[in-house]
Amino acid sequence: MDEDEIQRFKEERERLNDIIMDHAGLETKRFFNLDSQVYEDGQIPVKWKEMMGLVASTVLRCDDCIEYHIIRCKKEGVSDSEFEEALSIALVVGGSITIPHLRKAFELWDQLKEE
Amino acid sequence: MDEDEIQRFKEERERLNDIIMDHAGLETKRFFNLDSQVYEDGQIPVKWKEMMGLVASTVLRCDDCIEYHIIRCKKEGVSDSEFEEALSIALVVGGSITIPHLRKAFELWDQLKEE
Amino acid sequence: MDEDEIQRFKEERERLNDIIMDHAGLETKRFFNLDSQVYEDGQIPVKWKEMMGLVASTVLRCDDCIEYHIIRCKKEGVSDSEFEEALSIALVVGGSITIPHLRKAFELWDQLKEE
Amino acid sequence: MDEDEIQRFKEERERLNDIIMDHAGLETKRFFNLDSQVYEDGQIPVKWKEMMGLVASTVLRCDDCIEYHIIRCKKEGVSDSEFEEALSIALVVGGSITIPHLRKAFELWDQLKEE
Amino acid sequence: MDEDEIQRFKEERERLNDIIMDHAGLETKRFFNLDSQVYEDGQIPVKWKEMMGLVASTVLRCDDCIEYHIIRCKKEGVSDSEFEEALSIALVVGGSITIPHLRKAFELWDQLKEE
Amino acid sequence: MDEDEIQRFKEERERLNDIIMDHAGLETKRFFNLDSQVYEDGQIPVKWKEMMGLVASTVLRCDDCIEYHIIRCKKEGVSDSEFEEALSIALVVGGSITIPHLRKAFELWDQLKEE
Repeated sequence: MDEDEIQRFKEERERLNDIIMDHAGLETKRFFNLDSQVYEDGQIPVKWKEMMGLVASTVLRCDDCIEYHIIRCKKEGVSDSEFEEALSIALVVGGSITIPHLRKAFELWDQLKEE
Repeated sequence: MDEDEIQRFKEERERLNDIIMDHAGLETKRFFNLDSQVYEDGQIPVKWKEMMGLVASTVLRCDDCIEYHIIRCKKEGVSDSEFEEALSIALVVGGSITIPHLRKAFELWDQLKEE
Repeated sequence: MDEDEIQRFKEERERLNDIIMDHAGLETKRFFNLDSQVYEDGQIPVKWKEMMGLVASTVLRCDDCIEYHIIRCKKEGVSDSEFEEALSIALVVGGSITIPHLRKAFELWDQLKEE
Repeated sequence: MDEDEIQRFKEERERLNDIIMDHAGLETKRFFNLDSQVYEDGQIPVKWKEMMGLVASTVLRCDDCIEYHIIRCKKEGVSDSEFEEALSIALVVGGSITIPHLRKAFELWDQLKEE
Repeated sequence: MDEDEIQRFKEERERLNDIIMDHAGLETKRFFNLDSQVYEDGQIPVKWKEMMGLVASTVLRCDDCIEYHIIRCKKEGVSDSEFEEALSIALVVGGSITIPHLRKAFELWDQLKEE
Repeated sequence: MDEDEIQRFKEERERLNDIIMDHAGLETKRFFNLDSQVYEDGQIPVKWKEMMGLVASTVLRCDDCIEYHIIRCKKEGVSDSEFEEALSIALVVGGSITIPHLRKAFELWDQLKEE
C-alpha cells in the first residue's frame, strides 16, 4: 500500500459504509454508532483503545479491521516499539496463523511513516 | 461486482469445483452432495434455509460463502428488509469484525437488483 | 439438563446479567438493548430470527447462546423437524467440530419437550 | 480424568450420540458416517489421520474432539514424543489460546498410560 | 468464584502446567517462555499489555485465558472503569457471542475486589 | 497460480518477512524461529508434520498458510491420494466453510504438478 492506495482504502471504505447506511435499519445504525463510541476518550485514553482494537483485529485475523486501527494508531502517536510490542502479543496469543496479517500490518506501518 | 463480475464469480466457482471433483475421493464427493441436500426444500422452506446459510456464513466471515448465499437469497425472493434484518442479526452476534463482509454483501445485493 | 437445571440456567443467566448491568457503561447497555431488538418481530417473523440465532450460535460453538436460542425456539413453536433441519445446516457449514454442541442441543430439546 | 472418568466420557458420548440419531434426518446421519469414513485406513495410515484430527481439534479448541482423538491416538500406538511434537505444532499454529486445551490433553495422556 | 476457588484455579493451573513441562520438548518450553516475555514491561507498560491480553482472550472466547488476565489486571491496578471500557471494546468487536464470557469476567472481577 | 505466480508468492512472502524482521523485537524473532523448528524432522517425519500444518491451516481457513504448506508437502513427496485424504479430513472437521480454500488448494496442487 502506497499513499494513493491508503487514500483509496479510505474512500472505498467510505463508499461502502454509505451503501450499508442506505439499507440500514435502526439496529444496524445503532451498532455503527456503538462501534465509534467504544473507541472514544474515556478512562482509557484513545491511544490504548486503538491498540486494543488492533490486537483484537489481529487475533481475529481481519485485514480490513487491522488496516483501520493501524491508521488510527499512527494518528494517535503510537511509536514503532509500541506497535511492535502490541503485535508480538497478538502473535503469541493468536499463533502463526496471524503471520500473514502481520506481514501486511508492518508493510502498511512503513508506508504510513513515509507519508 | 457488476453483472459481468457476478457471471465470472459463478464460472470461476464452477471451474474450481470441477478441479476438486477431478481429485475428490468418495468422502469429499459425499460431502459436496450433503452441502446441496441440507438446503433443499423440507420442513423449512428453501428461502429460510438460504437465509440461515447467509447468517452462518457472515458470522464465520467467509466472503465466497456469503456471495453464494446472497445470489441464492435473491433467487428465492428475499426482500430488502428481510435481507437487512438477517444481516443485522449476524452483525450483533458476530460483532464489528463482520462489518467488512457486510460492506461487500450490501454492495452485491444492490448490483443484483440492477440486473 | 432436566427441568430444574433449565430453571437454574435461566436464573444464573439473570443473576450474571445483573452483575454486568451493575458495571455496564452506556455502550455495554446499548449493546444489550440491540441484542434484544434484532430478534424482535419485523419483516422476518420472530420464529425465523430465533432459528437464525440458533444456527449462528452453533457454527460459532457457544453452548450458552445455543441453549438460550433453543429455549426461545421452543417458545416460538419450532417443530422437531424444523429444529433438526436447522441444526443439519449448522453441522454441514461448521463441520464435525460442532458435534459436541449438537449433542447438548438435542438433549436439551428432548428435556424441553418433557416439560 | 481417571479411568472411571474416561469410561464415563465414552458412555456419555455414546448416550448423546444416540439422542442425536433418534432425531437425525438423512443428512445428519450421512454426516456422521462421513465423520467415521475419513479416518479409516487409506493411503494415509489411520495413525496419522488420527493425529491430523488431533491437531485440527486443538487449533479449533474443542475439548471433546481433542479427548476423542487422544483416546484413538493411544489405541493406534502413538508414542509420547510423537504426541508431544504434534501438540507443539498445534501450539505454534494456534497460539497461547490453545494452552488450556494442552493442559487437559497432557493430563488425559498421562491417565491413559496408567491404565 | 470465591477466594478459595480463585486459589484453586491458580493451583490447578500450576499443576497442569507442570504436567505439560514434564512432557514438553524444547519448542513447547520456548513457547511458554515467549508467552511470559511478551507481557513483560517494555515500551508498553505491563498494565496495558495485560489489558490487551484480556481483550484478545475475550474476542477469542477463552475463559481460562480471560481469568488469568483478569487476575493480572487486578494486580496491576486496573480500575473498574478501565476494566469495563476494555470489555466494551471486546463486546463490540466480538459480538454477542462474547456475552457468556463477560458474565463470568464481571463476576470474577467483583470477587477479586472483595478479597 | 501458474509457475510465475508461485515464484512471485515466494518472493512476496520473503520480502514481507524481511519487513517484519526489520521491526521485530526479540520475542517476534523467537516466534519465527519456533515456527520453523516445530516442522523439523523429529519423531514425526517432516512429511507428516507438513500435512498436519496443512490440515491445521485449512480448518483455520488461512489461504497464505495453506499455500505455504502445499508447496512444502509437494517437496516432501506427498502423493495425490494422501493430499486428497488430508483435505477430506479438514473438510469434515471444518465444514463447508472450508470449501473456498479447498478450491484454491487443489488448483495450486495441479499447478505444482505441471512444473
